[in-house]
Amino acid sequence: MLADTELPTRWYNIVADMPTRPLPPLDPATKKPVTKEKMSAIFAEELIDQEMSTERWIEIPDQVQDLYKIWRSTPLVRAYNLEKALDTPAKIYFKNEGVSPAGSHKPNTAIPQAYYNYKQGIKHLTTETGAGQWGSAIALASQYFGLDLKVFMVKVSYNQKPYRKLMMNAWGADVIASPSTLTEAGRNVLARDPECSGSLGLAISEAVEMAIKDPEHTRYCLGSVLNHVLLHQTVIGEEALRQMEMTGDYPDIVIGCFGGGSNFAGIGFSFLRGNFTEGRKTRVVAVEPQSCPKLTRGEFQYDFGDVAGFTPLIPMYTLGHNFQPADIHAGGLRYHGAGSIVSQLLKDKLIEAQSVPQLETMAAGVLFSKTEGIIPAPESTHAVAVAIREALKAKEEGTPKTILFNLSGHGLVDLYAYEQYFAGKLNNYEVTDEEIRRTVAQLEKLI
Amino acid sequence: MLADTELPTRWYNIVADMPTRPLPPLDPATKKPVTKEKMSAIFAEELIDQEMSTERWIEIPDQVQDLYKIWRSTPLVRAYNLEKALDTPAKIYFKNEGVSPAGSHKPNTAIPQAYYNYKQGIKHLTTETGAGQWGSAIALASQYFGLDLKVFMVKVSYNQKPYRKLMMNAWGADVIASPSTLTEAGRNVLARDPECSGSLGLAISEAVEMAIKDPEHTRYCLGSVLNHVLLHQTVIGEEALRQMEMTGDYPDIVIGCFGGGSNFAGIGFSFLRGNFTEGRKTRVVAVEPQSCPKLTRGEFQYDFGDVAGFTPLIPMYTLGHNFQPADIHAGGLRYHGAGSIVSQLLKDKLIEAQSVPQLETMAAGVLFSKTEGIIPAPESTHAVAVAIREALKAKEEGTPKTILFNLSGHGLVDLYAYEQYFAGKLNNYEVTDEEIRRTVAQLEKLI
Repeated sequence: MLADTELPTRWYNIVADMPTRPLPPLDPATKKPVTKEKMSAIFAEELIDQEMSTERWIEIPDQVQDLYKIWRSTPLVRAYNLEKALDTPAKIYFKNEGVSPAGSHKPNTAIPQAYYNYKQGIKHLTTETGAGQWGSAIALASQYFGLDLKVFMVKVSYNQKPYRKLMMNAWGADVIASPSTLTEAGRNVLARDPECSGSLGLAISEAVEMAIKDPEHTRYCLGSVLNHVLLHQTVIGEEALRQMEMTGDYPDIVIGCFGGGSNFAGIGFSFLRGNFTEGRKTRVVAVEPQSCPKLTRGEFQYDFGDVAGFTPLIPMYTLGHNFQPADIHAGGLRYHGAGSIVSQLLKDKLIEAQSVPQLETMAAGVLFSKTEGIIPAPESTHAVAVAIREALKAKEEGTPKTILFNLSGHGLVDLYAYEQYFAGKLNNYEVTDEEIRRTVAQLEKLI
Repeated sequence: MLADTELPTRWYNIVADMPTRPLPPLDPATKKPVTKEKMSAIFAEELIDQEMSTERWIEIPDQVQDLYKIWRSTPLVRAYNLEKALDTPAKIYFKNEGVSPAGSHKPNTAIPQAYYNYKQGIKHLTTETGAGQWGSAIALASQYFGLDLKVFMVKVSYNQKPYRKLMMNAWGADVIASPSTLTEAGRNVLARDPECSGSLGLAISEAVEMAIKDPEHTRYCLGSVLNHVLLHQTVIGEEALRQMEMTGDYPDIVIGCFGGGSNFAGIGFSFLRGNFTEGRKTRVVAVEPQSCPKLTRGEFQYDFGDVAGFTPLIPMYTLGHNFQPADIHAGGLRYHGAGSIVSQLLKDKLIEAQSVPQLETMAAGVLFSKTEGIIPAPESTHAVAVAIREALKAKEEGTPKTILFNLSGHGLVDLYAYEQYFAGKLNNYEVTDEEIRRTVAQLEKLI
């Protein structure tokens, strides 16, 4: 662990060092780059500046640093027991983001997002949440700054995940099952289908609609995909760089699970800097579910960030915004596209991607629980699975490697997934090429 | 936070510095001090040595230190937001033990207990658990050392707390609803009452019976009350001492919630050393539920540690081993007595005790969640409540005080308590003097 005086004071903006900068987001109406004015009805000003910034370093405000200190630095741990169980010559390290008050890496961006909104005089925030990791993190952060928060929670999760809802309530947030009668988007859907169980795309539409209606006091916020979100998460990698230095090792492979890119960027971007500016050759690997394979089987296209087509067009590896991911337990990885920075890096072959079937991820999670004692969130088991794959490959090849992965969160509020796995009730969900072709084909009409 | 090189390498044994040493445990048959031989059928040898030791410092084995490093040091945090909300001149610090893989302080002793058993060649451990905090910690620790573990879980909790059971399963433990048909104690009860929902006392009896039956390969372990358990928890206070030094403050008041004494000893004993050997005057306060008030309203007597009268007689503040605590959510504090060290300290007025009604603890937990962002376990809310009381007293008196409390665990697997609180379904459970007199009166026959 790092002493408080060694904690990072700046976030790392990878855009400054990218050989090819990402394409800009486009206004769907004009097909021209979105203006700051247009975005400022939705997001706080400073967040938009960060979204567009090409500065290498961005100072972390003192108030944010103070709040980070409630749980940061997070531990960097050598997984000796896992190494032993795999009988591998590889060294395996993991960064444990599960020690945050919300149990995941999400507060790293929730806190600065709430802070910048507070600083601008905003009184109310809106957001959406699926499984609830993001919703609980932004509830926590809103509370710190006295902001009122409305979370539109996909109705099926609202009913199935009472613990996540209770966490948000304990932190003072107003949690609304989506579709709701609070917005036009919600009312329209309910008029057609009163039994609709909701979707993330619809919840986004509701949250954005509610923010736009009150430009003076309300803004919307998002937990992944966008550049400023990824930026805030680099506090993970900046810590990990210093912690790896203390071990005397440097990673050959850095691994993060991949939903919208926030935890992957968090662990990976700081090590990519070593590749870009110091001639390092670290492999940085994003791990996605086999059932939602945008990085490994999607196409690089402009696409909407949400199902309803409410957001700007983002240059991304995507399965098409109408792609309906299977109902895997890693709810945070069920997203059709990747953010623009990560997509550009993948296109330029500066990062790698692997996909893993659900049963392999759960088996990895159980092995990790038994050896290292931390029960990983279903999302995080994807990173564990590829760390295991790489450690076994090192064994086969007889080459010692240093592997670092991010444990994005603990699974204590997701134990139902493990119960179902133990009961033999989970499966792998194959996606056919035909399915992907169908949803991707729709994009050709967009631009 | 502390750097790894600053982590404690020794546990502190307060017995060495106590003005009056605790009375010995007695064999109920002979009324003479229990011999090591008698205890060695139940516990590992080195744990018995620690139980009886009067050495001031006991080295933490390297393997235990390495495992502690998975999550230790735990953060020491200044609760600025709580201070602001209370408008108090007091400084409030807390030590966050909730960051452990099991979510509480319990692994601090589970790991050395598993280690010493493993070192002795023991293959199987047995234990009991009520709400499941201890059971999950020892499951985690057993896994690290390849020990097979059977946890007798009180049947009512087994049915009500599936998440805790799942945590133990994920860590490879065999969880058995108690009463079970695996033991004579269990079978006897089931023969009389097939619907019996169990009790902690009965679960202890089952776990001990199973250990005694296999003296070669099986031992029993316990998560609180005993001297060696309290000893292991002093890693908390030793860290806190160093961390407080880094802040430049020293606590006037140290607070821990109180069930059997393990987390209280963990935070408190290292600061009592300052009182005993450096002339400090820190108030060390144990906080118990108003509905289970052994420290504030119990009597100092020899009593059994379990309901069934299976254990040695322990000199303790007790409500009588037949005392039936109300069904409060702080399951870990529902215990009729205190360990011998803490009881002696209280008798000698070297520590203080306060009791708090359930609704005050939950209100404190909610305020803490909203200000500091960490949802405390129902047990830990007791410490929060008294920290708030003392901070408000400091405000009333206009005296700046430094307060330190132990946040023994997070409440993410106990959110049901918060749900019931929000729904107005909790109450305070008053205990009459008559009830206490009745259960304490039975003890006069014991010795």
